[in-house]
Order: sequence, then C-alpha cells, then structure tokens
Amino acid sequence: MIRPFVPDDWPAIYPFFSRVVAAGDSYAYPDGLSSNEAEAVWVARPPGATVVAVDTPSPGVPSAAGAGVIGTATMGPVRPGRGAHIATASFMVSPEQRGRGAGRALGEHVVDWARRSGYRGIQFNAVVETNTAAVALWRSLGFEILATVPGAFDHREHGPVGLHVMFLDLAR
Amino acid sequence: MIRPFVPDDWPAIYPFFSRVVAAGDSYAYPDGLSSNEAEAVWVARPPGATVVAVDTPSPGVPSAAGAGVIGTATMGPVRPGRGAHIATASFMVSPEQRGRGAGRALGEHVVDWARRSGYRGIQFNAVVETNTAAVALWRSLGFEILATVPGAFDHREHGPVGLHVMFLDLAR
Repeated sequence: MIRPFVPDDWPAIYPFFSRVVAAGDSYAYPDGLSSNEAEAVWVARPPGATVVAVDTPSPGVPSAAGAGVIGTATMGPVRPGRGAHIATASFMVSPEQRGRGAGRALGEHVVDWARRSGYRGIQFNAVVETNTAAVALWRSLGFEILATVPGAFDHREHGPVGLHVMFLDLAR
Repeated sequence: MIRPFVPDDWPAIYPFFSRVVAAGDSYAYPDGLSSNEAEAVWVARPPGATVVAVDTPSPGVPSAAGAGVIGTATMGPVRPGRGAHIATASFMVSPEQRGRGAGRALGEHVVDWARRSGYRGIQFNAVVETNTAAVALWRSLGFEILATVPGAFDHREHGPVGLHVMFLDLAR
C-alpha cells in the first residue's frame, strides 16, 4: 500500500536511507547525514509530495505511523519557474524488502501522481548505470535513457560509472 | 577581467539577473526573486565559487566593488557525495554588454577552475536549445550535447523547447 508520508514515519525510514546511501551504489547524497539533515533532504514540500510503501499485514486495516514502512518515494518539479512542468522523483526501498514489488508500486504511484498533477514529463537526473534493477524497472514503466553522463558517479565498488538521464514523456 | 565575487558586487548584478530571468529565454529560476533571494540562489559557497567579469577602463587598475561588473558565473560540484567530482556552472551577462567576450572569458575561467580543482568533467544540466549563442560558445570550448530533454523549458516566446544536457570531459 502507498500512502502519504507523515512525520512519524521518518524514524522507520532513516535507518534504511542511511544504509542505502552508505552502500555507495545508487545515490549521491553526502555520507553521514544526521537524521534531521536527511529528513530535510528527502521530504518534499508542496507542490512536491512524499509517500511511503507500507507492508500491511491485513489489507485495508490502517497501521500506526512508521509501522511496516518498507520504502519511500519523493517527487516534485525537476526545476522551478519555466522548468516546473517536468517532474522528478527519488526512490528508496529497504534492502531486506527488495523483490516484493515496493519499488514498482512506488514508481507506478509517481507516474500516476505526475499525470494527475498535469506534469508533461518525468525526468530522472542520475540513475546509476550499474543499478540494473532500477534501470529495468523504469524502462518497464516507459522511461527511456536519453543520455549517460560518463563516469559521473563514484561507485563504492566499481569506481566511476555513468549516470543515466531518463525521461518519460507524458505530453503525448 | 575575471575576479572573485565580493558581496558589494551584488547590487550591480541583481538588475541584469532579474532582467535575464524575466526575459524567459534562458533560465528556469522562479520569476520575481527578491534581491536577497536571488543572491542566495546565485552565490556559491565553498567548494563552489562565484566570479564577476569586469570592464576595466584601465587594464591593471583595480576598480571599486561593483564598478564595471558586466557578467558573472557561479560554479561548484553538480551534486554532493559520490557525484561531487563533476562540476557545473551558470553564467549571466548583462544584455547590453553581450558580444564583448564576457561570456567566453567566464566560460574559459570556469573550465580552468574545474581543471585546476581536479574535477573530472563539467556538466550543464539545462542549456535552452534556442539559446544558440550559448550552445555555440560551449561547443567551442569543447562541450558536447549528450541529450536534449524534449519540451523541458517553457520559453516565453516559443513555448516548450528542449533543454540540452552538455558535458566536457576533463578526465581524458
């Protein structure tokens, strides 16, 4: 289930946010962000939005804030002013909870959100090319790779690898 | 002449910053930023840097802060953490002072700065495709167009036009 983020969800997110950043294979956030700093970086203000993927033991039964949070997505305009009709988004899923469809559910939610909100496209600025699961997921949702910036991500294991710019056209 | 920005330069920059943004043909900043807001957006903190292009009546004679400022550039890492080895930059030249080489001098300065600072490349995220003077200038400095995000800039005159992602490889 995908629902809007509430502040009490953050304590459930920060541990996997930190581990995903520290793994050094998908995000170019500064290492060692405090919980408050990471929350300020992650949680979007209007017109953006932040949601969580929740593992509900009983479908339809609401759970307490933070309970069962296994992933999160944050979305909003990719740039202000004359670029604000294109959306962007970021995604994190708890490493232990991968393969259960949370990433896909979050991705589908973001595409629906952007379409409903009137955005003309969604741009991902920096998809690590070795993150093949993410690349395949976005492609399956209709995103294309517009370009790969060579060596733009310093992968903890592989060293400099490319960052894909990916785009989904919603104006057609 | 290119020299580091000092805070007393800002009153000379804000008028042309505002006019360039309001023209709606090159930058996706919010319209109507106050002087303080615009300064916060434009002026970089270390490890970034901000410089000004100054029209010096007598070469070699220092002028007062703000005097003769006809352009500015701001530069720094394109993203933090594992992406911080790639630089980015933005440029503004006073509309009345175009064609006098300030843009080229600022561009050459940024390339030198990035090389000296050890960056492995420079990425421009959003060069408006109809801004042909800028595109030609960056190409002449060695930048290539990696991709064009379709319709990503709402040009005041032309409507939706593409934004080029441009890149200069400094690692070769």
